[in-house]
Amino acid sequence: MRDDYPVIKWPPPLVDRMMEVGDARIADMDAAGIDVQVLTLTQPALEVLPAKKAVPLAAELNDFLAARIAEHPTRFDGLAAVPAVDARAAADELERSVRELGLKGALVNGQTNGRFLDDPQFMPLLERIAELDVPLYLHPAPAPKEVSRLYYQGFGDIIEAHLAMAGWGWHSELGLHAVRLVLAGVFDRLPNLQVVIGHMGEIIPFMLDRMVRFLGPAIELERPLEEYFRTNFWYTTSGFVWDPPLQCTLDTIGAERLLFAVDYPFDDNARATGWFNAAPLSDRQRALIAHENADRLFGLTH
Amino acid sequence: MRDDYPVIKWPPPLVDRMMEVGDARIADMDAAGIDVQVLTLTQPALEVLPAKKAVPLAAELNDFLAARIAEHPTRFDGLAAVPAVDARAAADELERSVRELGLKGALVNGQTNGRFLDDPQFMPLLERIAELDVPLYLHPAPAPKEVSRLYYQGFGDIIEAHLAMAGWGWHSELGLHAVRLVLAGVFDRLPNLQVVIGHMGEIIPFMLDRMVRFLGPAIELERPLEEYFRTNFWYTTSGFVWDPPLQCTLDTIGAERLLFAVDYPFDDNARATGWFNAAPLSDRQRALIAHENADRLFGLTH
Repeated sequence: MRDDYPVIKWPPPLVDRMMEVGDARIADMDAAGIDVQVLTLTQPALEVLPAKKAVPLAAELNDFLAARIAEHPTRFDGLAAVPAVDARAAADELERSVRELGLKGALVNGQTNGRFLDDPQFMPLLERIAELDVPLYLHPAPAPKEVSRLYYQGFGDIIEAHLAMAGWGWHSELGLHAVRLVLAGVFDRLPNLQVVIGHMGEIIPFMLDRMVRFLGPAIELERPLEEYFRTNFWYTTSGFVWDPPLQCTLDTIGAERLLFAVDYPFDDNARATGWFNAAPLSDRQRALIAHENADRLFGLTH
Repeated sequence: MRDDYPVIKWPPPLVDRMMEVGDARIADMDAAGIDVQVLTLTQPALEVLPAKKAVPLAAELNDFLAARIAEHPTRFDGLAAVPAVDARAAADELERSVRELGLKGALVNGQTNGRFLDDPQFMPLLERIAELDVPLYLHPAPAPKEVSRLYYQGFGDIIEAHLAMAGWGWHSELGLHAVRLVLAGVFDRLPNLQVVIGHMGEIIPFMLDRMVRFLGPAIELERPLEEYFRTNFWYTTSGFVWDPPLQCTLDTIGAERLLFAVDYPFDDNARATGWFNAAPLSDRQRALIAHENADRLFGLTH
């Protein structure tokens, strides 16, 4: 394990819900009116491991995931865990996962090797993702310990962890991660690369015009800055069951790039669908967000 | 100067606009329909200096500010620069600035002494602010160099500076700063302390419900988490001339705590008022945001 990143420990009841990928999970989906879950590996994940451990573990995890999906092929799909620490091995494992296991894309958590994915070392993985024409889900991870020391300390372990993760830090770091991919010209090199970010857009919708104003004139890119956020990114509602940030995302990005998601088991299926069904959306917006965008992006055919 | 924080260098034309505090500035205000500017010291400011330099410089700067205001007392007001590095001296300088110079509050930029204002060393300053019943404006400052190294590097000096400041980092750090004040119980100790944050709320409106969900149950405070953000904070529109984040702030905080501001000379007076006059607001909301809230908060009597 890298010692410059913390390792998340989930409470046992949450771990039980994570590990149950069968009838109880499906019953909970049914009760909330959810047809399909796209499964992914949670954290601590491959990002904190050295390549010699991460590469073989990725294959094992993706086989496990594919086996669970095969047991309930109309209710589950999945994204591959990729050992980005070795970008070529990650690319190969993704290709295997997509072509042989039927997984629908890749997921990476935060920084790897102390770097964001715009670092040149990861280009072989991003190239393969684009080549395979599958999406990359960019999920937050705990901030480097040094950032936590400078930003999040002073409140005891529990509050500090919340502040560094779902209470603030996850979202500010992940939004930054998305912005960095744009600024680095990743989408000029790989124009069809599609990146999914959760949590109602990881602050991007609130900050979009501000970034356009201050970063737009300073950077040389092939297209206007805002266009990348509207053509190379998809956004999910995961863990954000509130109308004001939804409205902000609709007003800056639009329903055409937004996907309903729960963030199960961190959030509750029925709570999320209950909110979504009552949210102020047109029928067309609701259909796009509820399933049409996901069907298109992930190539779901249920 | 501290060597763990960068020192901002503004381009000369911007410095000229900063330093002109007279007829040209007022003509520009008139052209945009702005009655009063609340003047503050910009950066690099007292936060990067040791106490022996910061304390005497603060007095000099506040005297300078008061002299400019005295030349145009119906068009300018001001907030005192306070040398937070020595919190007791800062408290005394604020008291002098308010009682003798007629300044309307204090302004602090980001971290001081490598710490946010929730650190106990700053309590004497916060206590005096509350005692004097004037607001504290919390303005962003450049992130610690170590955060920039981990988060913002890789794009060359200009882009990195924008990314660390107005393009992302300023706002994620300042929003965090505000959250930390709440979590530390500052407003339980000083219930009447009023803090102003700019840039349409420094991401807080987008993140508010998420913080309530994840931080709320984990922290012991006297009041519900969201209540502090609606009773101890004021928000300005400075530098955010866009409807979607405005709407998000109205929907989460409300017009009762929002103040129109330009961020002059970083933003343009006419651009800001042009946007504001066309923004989708009721007459009542517009009156509150345009001047009623500011009159009340700063005790303006023009």
